[in-house]
Amino acid sequence: MKAVGFKTSLPIASPNSFIDFEIEKPTPKGHELLVKINAIAVNPVDYKIRQNSAKDTELAEPKIIGWDACGIIEAIGNEVSLFKVGDEVYYAGDITKAGCNAEYQVIDERIVGKKPKSLSNEAAAAMPLATLTAWEILFDRIRISTEKDKGKTLLIIAGAGGVGSIAIQLAKKIAGLKVIATASRPESIEWCKHMGADVVVNHKNLTEEVRNAGLQYVDFIVDFVDANAYWDEMVELIKPQGHIASITGSATPIALNKLKTKSASFSWEFMYTRSSFQTEDMIEQHHILNKVADLIDEGVLVHTLTQTLDGLSAETLKLAHEQLESGTTIGKLAIKL
Amino acid sequence: MKAVGFKTSLPIASPNSFIDFEIEKPTPKGHELLVKINAIAVNPVDYKIRQNSAKDTELAEPKIIGWDACGIIEAIGNEVSLFKVGDEVYYAGDITKAGCNAEYQVIDERIVGKKPKSLSNEAAAAMPLATLTAWEILFDRIRISTEKDKGKTLLIIAGAGGVGSIAIQLAKKIAGLKVIATASRPESIEWCKHMGADVVVNHKNLTEEVRNAGLQYVDFIVDFVDANAYWDEMVELIKPQGHIASITGSATPIALNKLKTKSASFSWEFMYTRSSFQTEDMIEQHHILNKVADLIDEGVLVHTLTQTLDGLSAETLKLAHEQLESGTTIGKLAIKL
Repeated sequence: MKAVGFKTSLPIASPNSFIDFEIEKPTPKGHELLVKINAIAVNPVDYKIRQNSAKDTELAEPKIIGWDACGIIEAIGNEVSLFKVGDEVYYAGDITKAGCNAEYQVIDERIVGKKPKSLSNEAAAAMPLATLTAWEILFDRIRISTEKDKGKTLLIIAGAGGVGSIAIQLAKKIAGLKVIATASRPESIEWCKHMGADVVVNHKNLTEEVRNAGLQYVDFIVDFVDANAYWDEMVELIKPQGHIASITGSATPIALNKLKTKSASFSWEFMYTRSSFQTEDMIEQHHILNKVADLIDEGVLVHTLTQTLDGLSAETLKLAHEQLESGTTIGKLAIKL
Repeated sequence: MKAVGFKTSLPIASPNSFIDFEIEKPTPKGHELLVKINAIAVNPVDYKIRQNSAKDTELAEPKIIGWDACGIIEAIGNEVSLFKVGDEVYYAGDITKAGCNAEYQVIDERIVGKKPKSLSNEAAAAMPLATLTAWEILFDRIRISTEKDKGKTLLIIAGAGGVGSIAIQLAKKIAGLKVIATASRPESIEWCKHMGADVVVNHKNLTEEVRNAGLQYVDFIVDFVDANAYWDEMVELIKPQGHIASITGSATPIALNKLKTKSASFSWEFMYTRSSFQTEDMIEQHHILNKVADLIDEGVLVHTLTQTLDGLSAETLKLAHEQLESGTTIGKLAIKL
């Protein structure tokens, strides 16, 4: 089968930042599904891994990345019980295994959902990673209650990106929160409002902007861009007993003590935790993706696809990464196989 | 009225580490109660404040500390609705105001509870600060569910101290958790078991000890001694998607990033947050203290008093602080007025 990968971490403009190659089609075992992929999407985690995982070395075999796909099940392992051959599915995947930048992929059924019927393959492929991340950060990490927390306030730092776009929708439409999202360009401000944000503020002078919007504190903050850079403003804006969460990681130690007088909480969300550790509740990702498929088909949630490229190749993946690395992408970019 | 305080931060053995003095009896306003104190207890926060709040200065008036008391209401402010004159009460207090090392104190009714009927004044005075801290860290910060989390595992670092002794009981008897507590001396090990701990481990070689007890990970960790010192072991032992909480603060930045691959959470608990910020839910402390009074009177929870000194004076407070500073106190020490 055809696949795209890299053997060395190179700047995206380098001729070999991505290479086309052929590899044997994998065989599904146990809980695995063999999926014939018909669309994929890209995420910031992709270029971070491309830039860092083969820095001072050349890999023996090209590394296949990519963790957002839509496809049709072509074969199943002997323990599969949630799906059958021919089912249309969408999923993010498992960072400890080969990704979806290929014609076929094997994937554990417990992290796969049924494709939303009302979406194109490309729009469906654009959903899983951002959806799982946004769902987990709000409902599994912060543990926002769709009953008790209605009307509380959530600040979303980086509202117009892939994860931000879904987080706005989930917070507003499922949890009933008041959503304040950050965006700075006219088109990203417009997009955040379209996703359901009640208030859009500029990330520069964040504290002042939020205060000007009439809020001394917010109950919850989710950060999708840089936990270190926004730490002091998050500390200032979080309500006593509030909860901050981030997906970005932190290159340096953090002045956690600043949250103490407020008895505040902090959580990381890493979408790959459940599959990496094979947690007992790993099947939650299957349930989340199915729930979200229903919510999309019922018209409650909308897809976030804004750009589509054609054909799986080193060339289209270079274009896709180049776009993501610019940091200006609104919503999601997909590739149609 | 008689009070005990200090004007300068001095080692406890210094003659003026505490001084006896007279001050006017305060008058209750608004939601305040005037309480005639009949017993107080001491906590590590007391000597931390004594050691640090007047380091390079001499205060104009002696500072009154102490945040654990039992007494009888002698007068009430014009907005009081939860209590009446003559009620017996117990409470921790508000760190932004004068403490309880005095014959009388005014205190906001919303952070006061009815005294457990079955306890002596001294045993009742030993409960509030540790109880509020333990209750809040388990149920308001980590948000342990008494329904969904039954049977999960909790590691308590420093099980035999004031807060640890109550945390063990609440975790075991109210939340139905499996409790692993740290203690190292024979008498503190025995005490932790008496409080309800399922397993007691030594804090030295903590990871190894917990693993030897058959646990790869624990669902929750609460630290009552030193978040910095135990950070790496807490990171190692926490279950993916688990939750760590601490009351100690941290003098240096923390390598928070180490929790990322596990999508783990961290909370501070600071018992004074609600009163300091006058949060909307400040009255929760009234409810917690009342609930715990009932649980004590029903025989579900037991008091943690182990030592009593006689008489409010600089001398008894010196003895009490000396004992606490030794770091070997089991349960709680109270002073009978």
